[in-house]
Amino acid sequence: MSSHVEQSAVTVLGLGPMGRALAGAFLAAGLRTTVWNRTPGRERELAERGALSAGSPQEAVAAGPLSVVCVVNYDAAEAILRRPEVAGALAGRTVVNLSADTPARARELADWAAGRGIRYLDGAIMTPVATIGTPAAVFLHSGPEPLYREHRPVLDALGGTHTHLGEEIGRAAAYDIALLDVFWTAMAGYAHALAVAKAEGIGARELAPFAQGIGAILPPLFEQFAASAEEGGYSGEGNPITSAASSMAHIVQASEAHGIDAGVMRAAEGLARRVIGLGHGADGFVRVAEVLGRR
Amino acid sequence: MSSHVEQSAVTVLGLGPMGRALAGAFLAAGLRTTVWNRTPGRERELAERGALSAGSPQEAVAAGPLSVVCVVNYDAAEAILRRPEVAGALAGRTVVNLSADTPARARELADWAAGRGIRYLDGAIMTPVATIGTPAAVFLHSGPEPLYREHRPVLDALGGTHTHLGEEIGRAAAYDIALLDVFWTAMAGYAHALAVAKAEGIGARELAPFAQGIGAILPPLFEQFAASAEEGGYSGEGNPITSAASSMAHIVQASEAHGIDAGVMRAAEGLARRVIGLGHGADGFVRVAEVLGRR
Repeated sequence: MSSHVEQSAVTVLGLGPMGRALAGAFLAAGLRTTVWNRTPGRERELAERGALSAGSPQEAVAAGPLSVVCVVNYDAAEAILRRPEVAGALAGRTVVNLSADTPARARELADWAAGRGIRYLDGAIMTPVATIGTPAAVFLHSGPEPLYREHRPVLDALGGTHTHLGEEIGRAAAYDIALLDVFWTAMAGYAHALAVAKAEGIGARELAPFAQGIGAILPPLFEQFAASAEEGGYSGEGNPITSAASSMAHIVQASEAHGIDAGVMRAAEGLARRVIGLGHGADGFVRVAEVLGRR
Repeated sequence: MSSHVEQSAVTVLGLGPMGRALAGAFLAAGLRTTVWNRTPGRERELAERGALSAGSPQEAVAAGPLSVVCVVNYDAAEAILRRPEVAGALAGRTVVNLSADTPARARELADWAAGRGIRYLDGAIMTPVATIGTPAAVFLHSGPEPLYREHRPVLDALGGTHTHLGEEIGRAAAYDIALLDVFWTAMAGYAHALAVAKAEGIGARELAPFAQGIGAILPPLFEQFAASAEEGGYSGEGNPITSAASSMAHIVQASEAHGIDAGVMRAAEGLARRVIGLGHGADGFVRVAEVLGRR
């Protein structure tokens, strides 16, 4: 086997919707792609497209120098990687773990891998399944820079932008957590807004264009908030947190008047009230970030 | 006083940051602008620019055919409008109430106004103070269409886009509630994300560009969600709510590992778990909207 072929082989462990998309992108890029999934049957369509289906995870990881792991969380990833026969086969090889979990779990798994001579990179996929293999995909990586550079040509087959955030192995998971925090909180707010709107006789498609307008004003506000948080200004600039708390209370009232659970907004309003109670009522909502972070 | 001058006069009640911006825009458009605020002193800069400062709210509303009210909520609005001498002066005149509160409060106040021969429009301002008088301002209105048409030329002095959402007087407040629900939930998520990122050694300005990327993917998702909610499909399309719940649990864990309150995300995760518990785990997160709205 020539070095070139060796470089162009990749293994994908985990064939959920995202794992299948990753394997499909590797195949589309002409890489020799070996796949394995705990539950058999998920590899069928990929095998028809030329993927090699391994009978066991140890056989899968032994097929090449690089294994990409994409399972539901690190419990699932470790249930595969920590099998003695898999760990043995991985010695001297590289794992790029694109499963999502906490930074602490990434650090634990990296420590374990280091003790077994397994080369380990951690990563996060920030965009939906449909973006994989397209310019819209966004991947974050962390771990040893030389190892990242070595495997970057294969990772590039996944399309999109790849950012190496640093050598600290937990960094990709930390960004992932913070960004999904923004994403899922916003989606929870939107789902709740659709329920309240419907109770008020407003159709989802009637609300959507205005909600998109709200979505459009968020990015510049995120930038302003970041500047204010780093400079420690927390200025209300005509929009004090007392006004935010008042709006939030109206949302809770209007929601509960329709019998719609307002727990998310109640919790958010609680943060604003805590800030006000600490004497920062004239500050902007960004003061919440500082108060949450106090020790 | 000619009809033309009468049409071009406007009164602003409430001179907080937003009220001052509204009065400033009316002045800039050359309208004869009368202002009043419960606490004196706020009108000084406006008076220097030509505003007429009224000594009482009844004097203010009597100065012209149209009074725009912009105070913190409807308790504050009613504390002015329901004074017998103010209500008397308003008979046959128009109130455009741009204060924020619930749809129920808008309906109550409209009923009260109708009983006193006061012509009443309700409205909401969806954009920050700095947008007033610029093309970026967004105003929502509801109430009798002929009344809206009559005063639209004066309201246009505030700049931006004005949308009449319908004759049902609570409609503007209902949109306001639903849109602020999206806005404040998203901002709470971002403030929390900044706190978690900081605890992980990630600066606010390092996170911001990626958070802006998350903000940019929200509007198209809002559109997809609205279509799914109206069609009743709730499809997970490769992103089942079980996966969302797993992400949310990671965020809670990572936050609490740093001693950072995760109440907002705990409540959001609770919504996802409720949906899963009802047997909809394969659906997309949009199923939350349907489950929240169940009676």
